[in-house]
Amino acid sequence: MNFHVDSEAGRLRHVILHRPDLELKRLTPTNKDDLLFDDVLWVKRAREEHDAFADTLRDRGVQVHYLSDLLTETLARPAARTLVLDRVFDTREFGPLAVDALRTAFDKLPPEELTGCLIGGVTRRETTPYLGTARSLRLHTLAPDDFVLPPLPNHLFTRDTSCWVYDGVSVNPMKKRARRRETVHFEAIYRHHPLFEKQEFHHWTGGQADHPATIEGGDVLVIGNAAVLVGMSERTTPQAVEALALRLFAAGSARRVVALEMPKKRSFMHLDTVMTMVGGDTFTQYAGLGMLPSCTIEPGAHEGELSITDHAPQDMHHAIADALGLPSVKVLTATQDVHSAEREQWDDGCNVLAVEPGVVVAYERNVTSNTHLRRNGIEVITVRGSELGRGRGGPRCMSCPVERDAA
Amino acid sequence: MNFHVDSEAGRLRHVILHRPDLELKRLTPTNKDDLLFDDVLWVKRAREEHDAFADTLRDRGVQVHYLSDLLTETLARPAARTLVLDRVFDTREFGPLAVDALRTAFDKLPPEELTGCLIGGVTRRETTPYLGTARSLRLHTLAPDDFVLPPLPNHLFTRDTSCWVYDGVSVNPMKKRARRRETVHFEAIYRHHPLFEKQEFHHWTGGQADHPATIEGGDVLVIGNAAVLVGMSERTTPQAVEALALRLFAAGSARRVVALEMPKKRSFMHLDTVMTMVGGDTFTQYAGLGMLPSCTIEPGAHEGELSITDHAPQDMHHAIADALGLPSVKVLTATQDVHSAEREQWDDGCNVLAVEPGVVVAYERNVTSNTHLRRNGIEVITVRGSELGRGRGGPRCMSCPVERDAA
Amino acid sequence: MNFHVDSEAGRLRHVILHRPDLELKRLTPTNKDDLLFDDVLWVKRAREEHDAFADTLRDRGVQVHYLSDLLTETLARPAARTLVLDRVFDTREFGPLAVDALRTAFDKLPPEELTGCLIGGVTRRETTPYLGTARSLRLHTLAPDDFVLPPLPNHLFTRDTSCWVYDGVSVNPMKKRARRRETVHFEAIYRHHPLFEKQEFHHWTGGQADHPATIEGGDVLVIGNAAVLVGMSERTTPQAVEALALRLFAAGSARRVVALEMPKKRSFMHLDTVMTMVGGDTFTQYAGLGMLPSCTIEPGAHEGELSITDHAPQDMHHAIADALGLPSVKVLTATQDVHSAEREQWDDGCNVLAVEPGVVVAYERNVTSNTHLRRNGIEVITVRGSELGRGRGGPRCMSCPVERDAA
Amino acid sequence: MNFHVDSEAGRLRHVILHRPDLELKRLTPTNKDDLLFDDVLWVKRAREEHDAFADTLRDRGVQVHYLSDLLTETLARPAARTLVLDRVFDTREFGPLAVDALRTAFDKLPPEELTGCLIGGVTRRETTPYLGTARSLRLHTLAPDDFVLPPLPNHLFTRDTSCWVYDGVSVNPMKKRARRRETVHFEAIYRHHPLFEKQEFHHWTGGQADHPATIEGGDVLVIGNAAVLVGMSERTTPQAVEALALRLFAAGSARRVVALEMPKKRSFMHLDTVMTMVGGDTFTQYAGLGMLPSCTIEPGAHEGELSITDHAPQDMHHAIADALGLPSVKVLTATQDVHSAEREQWDDGCNVLAVEPGVVVAYERNVTSNTHLRRNGIEVITVRGSELGRGRGGPRCMSCPVERDAA
Repeated sequence: MNFHVDSEAGRLRHVILHRPDLELKRLTPTNKDDLLFDDVLWVKRAREEHDAFADTLRDRGVQVHYLSDLLTETLARPAARTLVLDRVFDTREFGPLAVDALRTAFDKLPPEELTGCLIGGVTRRETTPYLGTARSLRLHTLAPDDFVLPPLPNHLFTRDTSCWVYDGVSVNPMKKRARRRETVHFEAIYRHHPLFEKQEFHHWTGGQADHPATIEGGDVLVIGNAAVLVGMSERTTPQAVEALALRLFAAGSARRVVALEMPKKRSFMHLDTVMTMVGGDTFTQYAGLGMLPSCTIEPGAHEGELSITDHAPQDMHHAIADALGLPSVKVLTATQDVHSAEREQWDDGCNVLAVEPGVVVAYERNVTSNTHLRRNGIEVITVRGSELGRGRGGPRCMSCPVERDAA
Repeated sequence: MNFHVDSEAGRLRHVILHRPDLELKRLTPTNKDDLLFDDVLWVKRAREEHDAFADTLRDRGVQVHYLSDLLTETLARPAARTLVLDRVFDTREFGPLAVDALRTAFDKLPPEELTGCLIGGVTRRETTPYLGTARSLRLHTLAPDDFVLPPLPNHLFTRDTSCWVYDGVSVNPMKKRARRRETVHFEAIYRHHPLFEKQEFHHWTGGQADHPATIEGGDVLVIGNAAVLVGMSERTTPQAVEALALRLFAAGSARRVVALEMPKKRSFMHLDTVMTMVGGDTFTQYAGLGMLPSCTIEPGAHEGELSITDHAPQDMHHAIADALGLPSVKVLTATQDVHSAEREQWDDGCNVLAVEPGVVVAYERNVTSNTHLRRNGIEVITVRGSELGRGRGGPRCMSCPVERDAA
Repeated sequence: MNFHVDSEAGRLRHVILHRPDLELKRLTPTNKDDLLFDDVLWVKRAREEHDAFADTLRDRGVQVHYLSDLLTETLARPAARTLVLDRVFDTREFGPLAVDALRTAFDKLPPEELTGCLIGGVTRRETTPYLGTARSLRLHTLAPDDFVLPPLPNHLFTRDTSCWVYDGVSVNPMKKRARRRETVHFEAIYRHHPLFEKQEFHHWTGGQADHPATIEGGDVLVIGNAAVLVGMSERTTPQAVEALALRLFAAGSARRVVALEMPKKRSFMHLDTVMTMVGGDTFTQYAGLGMLPSCTIEPGAHEGELSITDHAPQDMHHAIADALGLPSVKVLTATQDVHSAEREQWDDGCNVLAVEPGVVVAYERNVTSNTHLRRNGIEVITVRGSELGRGRGGPRCMSCPVERDAA
Repeated sequence: MNFHVDSEAGRLRHVILHRPDLELKRLTPTNKDDLLFDDVLWVKRAREEHDAFADTLRDRGVQVHYLSDLLTETLARPAARTLVLDRVFDTREFGPLAVDALRTAFDKLPPEELTGCLIGGVTRRETTPYLGTARSLRLHTLAPDDFVLPPLPNHLFTRDTSCWVYDGVSVNPMKKRARRRETVHFEAIYRHHPLFEKQEFHHWTGGQADHPATIEGGDVLVIGNAAVLVGMSERTTPQAVEALALRLFAAGSARRVVALEMPKKRSFMHLDTVMTMVGGDTFTQYAGLGMLPSCTIEPGAHEGELSITDHAPQDMHHAIADALGLPSVKVLTATQDVHSAEREQWDDGCNVLAVEPGVVVAYERNVTSNTHLRRNGIEVITVRGSELGRGRGGPRCMSCPVERDAA
């Protein structure tokens, strides 16, 4: 095995998913906004829907790895456990009086239980068995149902926290406070899990330490031909794109990055909420996205420099085609009224996951988008998302490919 | 037949529902907040869920009337058509230059199509066949997909717009702009539909003309024993409760009103989102509601006067029991952690619809609440609400009983 | 005397102002947003600033009438008192049990005190002497410092509630709930005050009864040459513009209305916050306004019809010039960086009041705007507005001309 | 000279202020919320008011140091310049391609100009002379008036960024992104400015590196008797209070910390917005604050431990008195209606600065609060704050005492 991701739509071989669990049961109408969810989910049903999604991938020959399993297996390694606990139990977060007691208590947990706590979070009440009535002011000020360790419900969207770009992985510094603890889990996995520790691959970023130079996987499309398409969004910064480009070029893993200037708003959170690939030269795109200003980034005259070429909005598709070495790309956008198009984009109509060229997984509810893809020769495998979709993420958001062929 | 509603949990015989249609397809991420929805719905699936809900009621011997059918049959009557069109096509809304043309165009539509427009709304583009390029500044300033007549997605919640209280109906002046046009549809139905026009019953309110003395059916519980329980919420005003009490007492239809001071916040939108009846002396109540200040309203010394008696928060249940002529009432509240309780309340866990004493219809997702009811001897028939529930309304919200026995 | 307003910048002879009083002392950080203020004011200082503003006008030969005096003198007339009390004490607002007692209690007040209550508002505690412990549920639910009658702090902006257009007045239906009670005060004054009752002039609108066809004086510029410039803003609706145009044309008082499509946002609340006249052919305009789509409205082929001609954004100034019968208009916009320009617009830099052609009153703080006007030959008389300006209104907003010559 | 602050109301000898300048001219209606201001200020007038405030202090024998002067003198030292530039020009903020060019360009500036840029901010347009058309994606995506280095308007509130507690200083990690760059300026001054470099004093915190264990000076009252009163607010965390207590106790500089649980809302931003000291045993307190839960923190049984004793809300004043070794404290709260009290708190009515026991500086606008203090024997020196007060900070917020006697 040799992990690498060479395209968006080539044959998908290995993927990391996260099965909904306790962290989603913790969502409430009161805390959902802070935790970046628009609604609460019925977790039992969400899990059924997610299992069906995983089965769909397996049916297509994709090997599914679950984040919780990977993390549990990783936490069995002392070095990984140290890495994670050191990062999570920071004095500046928990105060000098509680941090050691907390770290010690969690270090005693067996790997599976520790994984459960790290992802599902822990309330003050739940720590009482370990900690008793602590003499920590930090713990003192918490009500029994307040979180000592908040849950990480956005782990559902494994796409964002790390993303593979050709022969390396970018373990991403996350923009929002609610997602920052996700990163160290992937750092530990890629460095210490048996599946990865013997492999050779590049690390394109420095993890959460790179913050505030944030970048998230939903904004990164590995379009092929040694090119990468990146959305500079609310969550992905130009300085992070610069750094990624420099490292990719230095390693010879990519020759060009096309960066799009995304509108900075929640409904266009990541590039893949408005535009994804369904084949080697074919995209599905939200009608309301319009054309965006973009620029082409290439290696500069000297090492450590970049050459940046601007493109007017109307040249967006041409810039992408050019990066692919093609005369043009095919962009599929269903014709529908403004209201319906906006609804389907909201429901992740464009957020499809290709399993091989011309075959994608999509939510069943986006009937118009799916029909349009089918009429254009794309095979669309639908999955339910009545619950899953409430998190504003579709099949692409919920998957982190670690092995995918060129298209 | 003789319409009247004598309780919350007696045998239910006739109910008005509204089947999801075009008006819900019009919801978008952009307009949903103005239209009072937290999310967009997949209408096809919502309709399946709603059909199953209606079937459940029919299985229990309830006769289901659909609002669209009632309105269509009503609009076949010229007097009803005039009432509705006069109210909808107001010069102050449409301007002197467009109002006649619009009214004339809509008056030509056959009843079924007119109902579709009134509930589903009409965009500027859709009026082009009727109106051409109008010389109206009001229409001139609309984009093609802007609404000339906005849709009424909240008709789904037939509970609120009118509510029967013993031997009369309150056609309610609605608080929010997005729901105000709903009222005239019920006025027309109750005055002109064959099912109602020959019947004798009281009219407890003056319809939308009573605004801003607003009251909504979700805040009104016909608890029996000539008593009514009302929540004074964000949407139900004390002046409307006063007026309702005076009319009920004058007609001899009720002898007592218990008014609760609700917190004024969206998650406690109506009383029935936190408290409903499941039997003649039994309530299901949200744990997080706590006890509320209340007062008992009775006829005053002279006609047109009221006697008001205050109760401290801890006496809330006692005041209700007293109104029912009982020593106490039974209040069922599941024991669960703060987060779970808040989630189930959000998902309408308390918003159940009794079809007979001890038998209620509830959303399946609220497993803890439903299990708690069952353990206390209540039969709980569950229905799906993955889509329906996104509107923040449960079985009680979605039903307007017009005939129900005493408990 | 013969009231009429024939221009924006001709000699100003009579104006209505409102001197800051109790209504502004009622503003708090908690209620200010509902009452449409961005901040609370120090009323003593605001009154000093306002007195200086009034003196400045008097120095220029303008006769200043105070709203409070006019209203007090008006309320001495029984018919006026009945008009106002009937409108204010509405059963739908106060409930059947309190409305008569309240109306009776207020009717006993001498005119000056009644004016004080109507403008300054009344709390529950303050009504106790009149009402005792009422048996009204509506009053029952109020805390002692809650308002029975909310204050009207926006009376400060006399420009909006009524505006004279050539030989008539538009007593305006106001958009925001917090300002709706202002209208009846002007209705009473114009119909019953000795200064107006013998005069002949047109009434262009039907007062608050026209709601929701709202229009506000800040959006109406009487530019001269029988033309009117109107901003269709968040608060001024196209249907109201239609109605105004029809009446002006029918009376022969105007021959043309130019309507601008304003962005619907608070910082561009009214047209006069971004654009006012400083001479017969000269405007001051905010740099950030840009050019807006507009249309010219003229009498149509038949009575009761209008002819509407669209203009592209770049033709905005041409459309205005054409209405004035001029080849072009002069538009003064200071050159300054984006941040400074935005600051001065926010501080009412464009909201000047002309007292004669080429002479305007402005806030002293907008140094760049004022200097620019002076360099272009305009005499700028400055007044302080450290406190007054917190209400987001400048000299034009705070004045209602009732007599002004052509420019 | 030997810097230390031994009380809140003893004779004040040295203070750091910041005179309003460019950073406040950068505030606009659009950016003010991000920059934590409620309104824009007229800087010329704000500076006059601030100069009068400084003169008032000088008249009372206080030596005033200006932050800009201190920083300029500090930046003349190479080590200080390196400290500041290293911290400000971080690759993660500016990207690998621009950071060196920026740092080099700023390093060439003379100290005074560098201070101006660091505090006043720099736009893209303003960097063009230094940087030309950079090949940095980070700079590429900025519009000409976007900030490369945002301004620091909150430097006006020197109280928060550092605070002296007995014989040491806490250079504070700030909560809000808009204030984080302030901290390094004080670090440089206290370590490298001639006034401080030879002095011996403790450093109670580690500066911005302690983030997210944030603490701000507005929450810290040095009440005397080796005791400290701290508000745990939206911006001051319990873990930072723990750390401060441990260091104070270890150094023997304090024996007790009383911590109040503040409501987490903007109007109660810091403890000193609702409660300050006007004498050795006398406080002025906002009526609407009520009584808060508190706890007394003392050294624990072993080193590195704390003893924490809880107090019910009603014991708040007793806990403070006890820390002062007094039987009780005197708390002055003017009697006024809810609305007026809320207004004066908003306008910093409680945010007074004592210059000696029983003599305080206050804004003139808070007439009721000031009169109440005077009636209770306090000498109140008033200063204008029509402009200054728009930043929601009074005399205490705007001053950082570095030398003050015990009370």
